[in-house]
Amino acid sequence: MKKLLISTVAILATLPVFSQQALWGGTEIVSPEINPDNSVTFRLFAPNAQAVQVTGDFLPTQTVEVPNFGEVDVPGVADLVKDEKGVWSFTTPAPLAPELYMYSFVVDGLRMMDPSNVYMNRDVATVTNIFLIDEPGSRAHLYKVNDVPHGTVSRVWYDSPGLNLKRRMTIYTPPGYEDSNDSYPVFYLLHGAGGDEEAWIALGRTAQILDNLIAEGKAEPMIVVMTNGNPSQEAAPGETSEGFKRPGMDVSRMNRGEFETSFPDVVNYVDKHYRTKADKAHRAIAGLSMGGFHSLHTSKFYPDLFDYVGLFSAAIFPFDGRGEAPVYQDFEGKLKTQFEKNPKLYYIAIGDKDFLYNDNVKFRQILDANGYPYEYFESPDGHIWKNWRIYLTEFAPKLFKQ
Amino acid sequence: MKKLLISTVAILATLPVFSQQALWGGTEIVSPEINPDNSVTFRLFAPNAQAVQVTGDFLPTQTVEVPNFGEVDVPGVADLVKDEKGVWSFTTPAPLAPELYMYSFVVDGLRMMDPSNVYMNRDVATVTNIFLIDEPGSRAHLYKVNDVPHGTVSRVWYDSPGLNLKRRMTIYTPPGYEDSNDSYPVFYLLHGAGGDEEAWIALGRTAQILDNLIAEGKAEPMIVVMTNGNPSQEAAPGETSEGFKRPGMDVSRMNRGEFETSFPDVVNYVDKHYRTKADKAHRAIAGLSMGGFHSLHTSKFYPDLFDYVGLFSAAIFPFDGRGEAPVYQDFEGKLKTQFEKNPKLYYIAIGDKDFLYNDNVKFRQILDANGYPYEYFESPDGHIWKNWRIYLTEFAPKLFKQ
Repeated sequence: MKKLLISTVAILATLPVFSQQALWGGTEIVSPEINPDNSVTFRLFAPNAQAVQVTGDFLPTQTVEVPNFGEVDVPGVADLVKDEKGVWSFTTPAPLAPELYMYSFVVDGLRMMDPSNVYMNRDVATVTNIFLIDEPGSRAHLYKVNDVPHGTVSRVWYDSPGLNLKRRMTIYTPPGYEDSNDSYPVFYLLHGAGGDEEAWIALGRTAQILDNLIAEGKAEPMIVVMTNGNPSQEAAPGETSEGFKRPGMDVSRMNRGEFETSFPDVVNYVDKHYRTKADKAHRAIAGLSMGGFHSLHTSKFYPDLFDYVGLFSAAIFPFDGRGEAPVYQDFEGKLKTQFEKNPKLYYIAIGDKDFLYNDNVKFRQILDANGYPYEYFESPDGHIWKNWRIYLTEFAPKLFKQ
Repeated sequence: MKKLLISTVAILATLPVFSQQALWGGTEIVSPEINPDNSVTFRLFAPNAQAVQVTGDFLPTQTVEVPNFGEVDVPGVADLVKDEKGVWSFTTPAPLAPELYMYSFVVDGLRMMDPSNVYMNRDVATVTNIFLIDEPGSRAHLYKVNDVPHGTVSRVWYDSPGLNLKRRMTIYTPPGYEDSNDSYPVFYLLHGAGGDEEAWIALGRTAQILDNLIAEGKAEPMIVVMTNGNPSQEAAPGETSEGFKRPGMDVSRMNRGEFETSFPDVVNYVDKHYRTKADKAHRAIAGLSMGGFHSLHTSKFYPDLFDYVGLFSAAIFPFDGRGEAPVYQDFEGKLKTQFEKNPKLYYIAIGDKDFLYNDNVKFRQILDANGYPYEYFESPDGHIWKNWRIYLTEFAPKLFKQ
């Protein structure tokens, strides 16, 4: 085995500057280390630093004033302490609850990744490290890759005549799809503004959640289709001919309603290329924030398409009457038609600190006033991925049950 | 649109510590900036830093002594200069040749990612930022996502009775696969020690290279199957029930030859689940370093399986007679049988500074002495991904031509 080992040494040796931070007295730095009691220790080898902090959503939030916006809760900050070898460390004073957490280091005021942790998530243009506190039976256990059958995750290009684009989407097919001739129901799952077709699979842990819920018998085997909800985009940043462009918000073309009206392009592609149960009773649509807006409008514009509709922290009334496309017109009339056709589930979920909370209250008042049935789920916290993962674990088990 | 915009502000506002480094006098830092002449400017907002450097493979290499190993060439280092606003910058003194480059910042001795660049690659346990210098007609243009038809990339789990594991692989199907009934040839593409089933698709830019070569009519449409070559592993780090474990080398079970002898598990799965041309004339196998070793031994152990064999910077004789599994026995006898069956292409590629260069010379001497035909391609540089991408662009166009 000698030369195989040398091979790796050679690869690493070409990058001594890149790897030396991971070495400390011959021992690799472990960070984050999840201790047996679920407290967590963070470590960084930085002998020249004056101050090292860790910031992340595992720390108690602090309230800050954002100009032109108001007060918001932001992740807290904790100080690391340096030892005689130049290794800084911080251990949480208490065990952490099971959850997928994100964090970064701040070294002399400069945010940086943890060089000992290769696991990261990108949210729009911000990358942070992640770690998972697991506990069997907890909700977070659904976010973990467990020893259960796994579905297939594919990045697929489809033609959207309605947007005049070739576009990329992410498709999850459930375990066993390849080895059966069965047809499956389809769940269309939409991201928020600034996201893309990678958001739900990465930040939302969709494949893990579905694998685990299906293995536990809590969700039906289903296909999950995650499209790109930005009607001007072909695909996620880095996956188009624009190259390694900086990710950002691009809501151009949004108010023309083309994304919603062209949604049958997606459904047609999926029904043609996958073994689907191609009827209303076996289709669901849900989305977060802007994706909730898309789910709301698409499902009422095509009232025969979806029997299951989920609005997660949805942007309900973002246009203030300025959306002139037909899909946005006659809001209450379209809603009436949709509910006259008795969708099996209309589901609304939001956090009690979400800045869209009051808009969702107003929308529920419309539903209540008209006697339109819906399920409502309220969680703590605000407009964050923690909540959207929770809503997915709540919503998916309700789908396609007879 | 007001509230959609607010929605993103809210997301970003929850992370002021995370995003403030990207802001500078109201303007976002752009880094790296590829200038019109293909020089590149790197920038970092770090008002408190004492010294900021950039290191990467775009800088002239420097030779260093690695203990117990010898001299190796490593990426050079350049100093950034601070302006009055706290923004450090460095511009390459000359245009860069078209290539996919990697780099990191070093701030007061601490390596860190560029917070303005979300594009990164992981090589074993080391993450670096990347950027691409493009020029139409250049080889690097093949590494870019261009406005051409794109294949599908899937992560698929298969059963390997030979390894007694459920395992993950990455499969590229060419543009048009979903909309035809055609059968396709299959190219099995293997990574090196420390890599996994993500290595070729991420570091090797396989999907981009195949999309572009096929669009240019230079390569036949083909399926590319990228397996995990570590026989003890189910899947890449983070994709198994071991959780977010630190990536590393795991060559346990390697010398039993199980990976090579169980390779028909992969071929059988692919032939059963994809529309393949399931014969020797339409199968290729190639790999880098350890994957070259696997390609060498698998192709001679199963001499009727592959008509095309590629050894990229291959580890040829790593066992020094210590590999006791049948697949490694009777090296020259098996090679004789393989060449008596006239493979259409036996291809060897290596860099002139590769630490495995001399082993490859010895292996070619055996081939020459026996009159076994092969193609040989020698490039500058050593045991690096730049070379493996080059070899893929050279090898793929030679496959499956009649």
